Amino acid sequence: MIKHLRSAADLDAATATLILDTAAEMAALSGREVKKLPALRGRTVVNLFYEDSTRTRISFEAAAKRLSADVINFSAKGSSVSKGESLKDTALTLQAMGADAVVIRHWASGAPHRLANWVDGSVVNAGDGTHEHPTQALLDAYTMRSRLGRLDGLRVAIVGDVLHSRVARSNVLLLTTLGAQVTVVGPPTLIPLDVAAALSEKTQVSFDLDAVLPDSDVVMMLRVQTERMQDSYFPSAREYSRRYGLDVSRLAKMPEHAIVMHPGPMNRGMEIAPEVADSPRSTIVEQVANGVSVRMAVLYLLLGGK
Amino acid sequence: MIKHLRSAADLDAATATLILDTAAEMAALSGREVKKLPALRGRTVVNLFYEDSTRTRISFEAAAKRLSADVINFSAKGSSVSKGESLKDTALTLQAMGADAVVIRHWASGAPHRLANWVDGSVVNAGDGTHEHPTQALLDAYTMRSRLGRLDGLRVAIVGDVLHSRVARSNVLLLTTLGAQVTVVGPPTLIPLDVAAALSEKTQVSFDLDAVLPDSDVVMMLRVQTERMQDSYFPSAREYSRRYGLDVSRLAKMPEHAIVMHPGPMNRGMEIAPEVADSPRSTIVEQVANGVSVRMAVLYLLLGGK
Amino acid sequence: MIKHLRSAADLDAATATLILDTAAEMAALSGREVKKLPALRGRTVVNLFYEDSTRTRISFEAAAKRLSADVINFSAKGSSVSKGESLKDTALTLQAMGADAVVIRHWASGAPHRLANWVDGSVVNAGDGTHEHPTQALLDAYTMRSRLGRLDGLRVAIVGDVLHSRVARSNVLLLTTLGAQVTVVGPPTLIPLDVAAALSEKTQVSFDLDAVLPDSDVVMMLRVQTERMQDSYFPSAREYSRRYGLDVSRLAKMPEHAIVMHPGPMNRGMEIAPEVADSPRSTIVEQVANGVSVRMAVLYLLLGGK
Repeated sequence: MIKHLRSAADLDAATATLILDTAAEMAALSGREVKKLPALRGRTVVNLFYEDSTRTRISFEAAAKRLSADVINFSAKGSSVSKGESLKDTALTLQAMGADAVVIRHWASGAPHRLANWVDGSVVNAGDGTHEHPTQALLDAYTMRSRLGRLDGLRVAIVGDVLHSRVARSNVLLLTTLGAQVTVVGPPTLIPLDVAAALSEKTQVSFDLDAVLPDSDVVMMLRVQTERMQDSYFPSAREYSRRYGLDVSRLAKMPEHAIVMHPGPMNRGMEIAPEVADSPRSTIVEQVANGVSVRMAVLYLLLGGK
Repeated sequence: MIKHLRSAADLDAATATLILDTAAEMAALSGREVKKLPALRGRTVVNLFYEDSTRTRISFEAAAKRLSADVINFSAKGSSVSKGESLKDTALTLQAMGADAVVIRHWASGAPHRLANWVDGSVVNAGDGTHEHPTQALLDAYTMRSRLGRLDGLRVAIVGDVLHSRVARSNVLLLTTLGAQVTVVGPPTLIPLDVAAALSEKTQVSFDLDAVLPDSDVVMMLRVQTERMQDSYFPSAREYSRRYGLDVSRLAKMPEHAIVMHPGPMNRGMEIAPEVADSPRSTIVEQVANGVSVRMAVLYLLLGGK
Repeated sequence: MIKHLRSAADLDAATATLILDTAAEMAALSGREVKKLPALRGRTVVNLFYEDSTRTRISFEAAAKRLSADVINFSAKGSSVSKGESLKDTALTLQAMGADAVVIRHWASGAPHRLANWVDGSVVNAGDGTHEHPTQALLDAYTMRSRLGRLDGLRVAIVGDVLHSRVARSNVLLLTTLGAQVTVVGPPTLIPLDVAAALSEKTQVSFDLDAVLPDSDVVMMLRVQTERMQDSYFPSAREYSRRYGLDVSRLAKMPEHAIVMHPGPMNRGMEIAPEVADSPRSTIVEQVANGVSVRMAVLYLLLGGK
């Protein structure tokens, strides 16, 4: 088993599949009857969050607690970070305190890689800058496999601000590792040629959502980061929504079995219409539930569970 | 048993009495010897706080932990809420994560009612806007019953900014359900006629604190929300304190057995004099202690404890 | 055993030595195998932090959780404190809730002493204003004893902004109690005569770091609080670093066995050069690890562990 999960690139197909299979077992065990597993009793998981996040922090906290680990939440706001403490010094602190795993969310791309040099415990990337968010990709893959029965050969469209999306980057890496066919879709200014080329040889690029929808098993809508809307390369909100928003009429163009995904939090009415978000073909709520199971599996396997 | 505690109106007399009786058992068990009860082991209680609060959040957290539940604190500051995530999306997240109970404090009146539509777990209102704060009313009723032996027929004066007080509203509902005689007291601008009428048929209204004191078994002082002081309908601080503040000379007008209550945090010197707050007839510290027992009872009963 | 740890002056030599010996046992037990001790099961430790802190809060939280205590974190930001609740009212709240220990960090010197008047539980000072930080002194003493085998007769130089340092004050008190010879070193404006006199009869004062280094077994560098740099009595950053910063050439002047300490967080390049901070003679990471053991010992002994 790998020691850290810094990037979806840390995962080969066998390891990724083991995580998904373990997550399925966790989901089966986490019914009302057996809510708490003793697997990580006495272990300490630190949530080291330099950026705000609802779902991710709570999801990791719930996952660790269900495995009976002790959880220490560290928010970089309200901390010595405001006195200028470096990531390295914080890492040495956590190392000295015997953290078994550090779950890190950071605004700087690459922070989890640096952290892994300084601690003996496992490092789990919970989102770093515009770089990666590998447990999101794992829960997305888990959700696709649950709904559609397989990943190999699955046609997945990832739609939106691909350039700045760590969710997109991790999904491209993981899904192609697992044999899916990925198409990234968005405005040309948000998918520059070098980015498209760098993503993967196996990834297709399209600027035309309507053309892609009929041939997709999965349509994953990315969150529009509205704070980027003022940048010159970003279309206006109305223009974006008109060309790349998933509304009811576009939903009708998808194959009947195809599903709609979104990592949340959604801008309802912007990249996704409320009716689509709440439709039975949307997996948005399942994704959140699956996130806890997948993070249980990741923590369990990284920390040496049997 | 009811499933949610959104409002004191969710409680009939039998249910409210069961909660108070259970709280008394919890208080008896929560001595040094048996501090931790296994009743909610493996259950997850989420504290979802959209407003600041010291006592309430810690009180619920202590209550849940004494029942061996896992507690996840969610503060709306430092969260995706700042990215515009709606209450509904947050609710779906908590639902997907399998929260057994969500304790919600929200600035919007009615938020707990909306939340209850979206989650399977129990919803406990820990204060919503100017609307309600039912566990505060329960701990107040518990404190009165402990000190004075009964609630039926008890004469209770609630004094202050009744218009904006969720504490007052929940107390009026609960106390009248339990047979107490409530008089609300305050400046006419803070008790408009329609409010007075709406409170309850059984509630009396007075603008003259000195006239009410000799006939009260309980005098509950409401916190003055100083941020409202600048509103035109609010008296000046000096005027308010002179007419509606409880000082030593007013304390002397109360019957000898009568008690003084305050939900905290107090403005010492404004609505209550320091000597009154610290007098043996004040129950302010007991109220806080009773809050933990009452919240243990509420969580225990809502979550299906036997 | 003492009940509170408000100041290093609460500790006589026997009590301080008992804490250090107990910390050594805690460190031995806290290996991977026995990470969680049941000693404080069912006890509640409240972290009451009115000031930001990374290390100290997490260190106490980790210590309490390893002893199986329940931990409730109370940050004064995001709390009723912003509504003007006094320390007394907060104390009454914690008292009413049955906190067994309150760990307090406060911007006001003396706050832990006041708090101890209002609660039945034990009070542990985790840093109050410019006054004291006794568990830091204990972990420093523990580190010195671990590295150098003794405290009696040890020559310790404490270097920097002695005037405003709670770390310095607590260390001077504790180390002289335990028989060490302390020299405080810094610019004259930061060690006024009355401060020097008040520190202790046994403490030496020097303004010349280079003269002190060859005769020191321990050199403890204090953090420069850069927000004080603009005060008229503070040297410029460059001047300070030149005269009182510990760089490689100064490290060479120390005896071979001598160690370098820093309470963290460091200003690398200001009071300490990166090469010195990361050298094998630096104990900075050990200090953090020892902090957890020492705080386990303090909580265990104050709360009546056997």
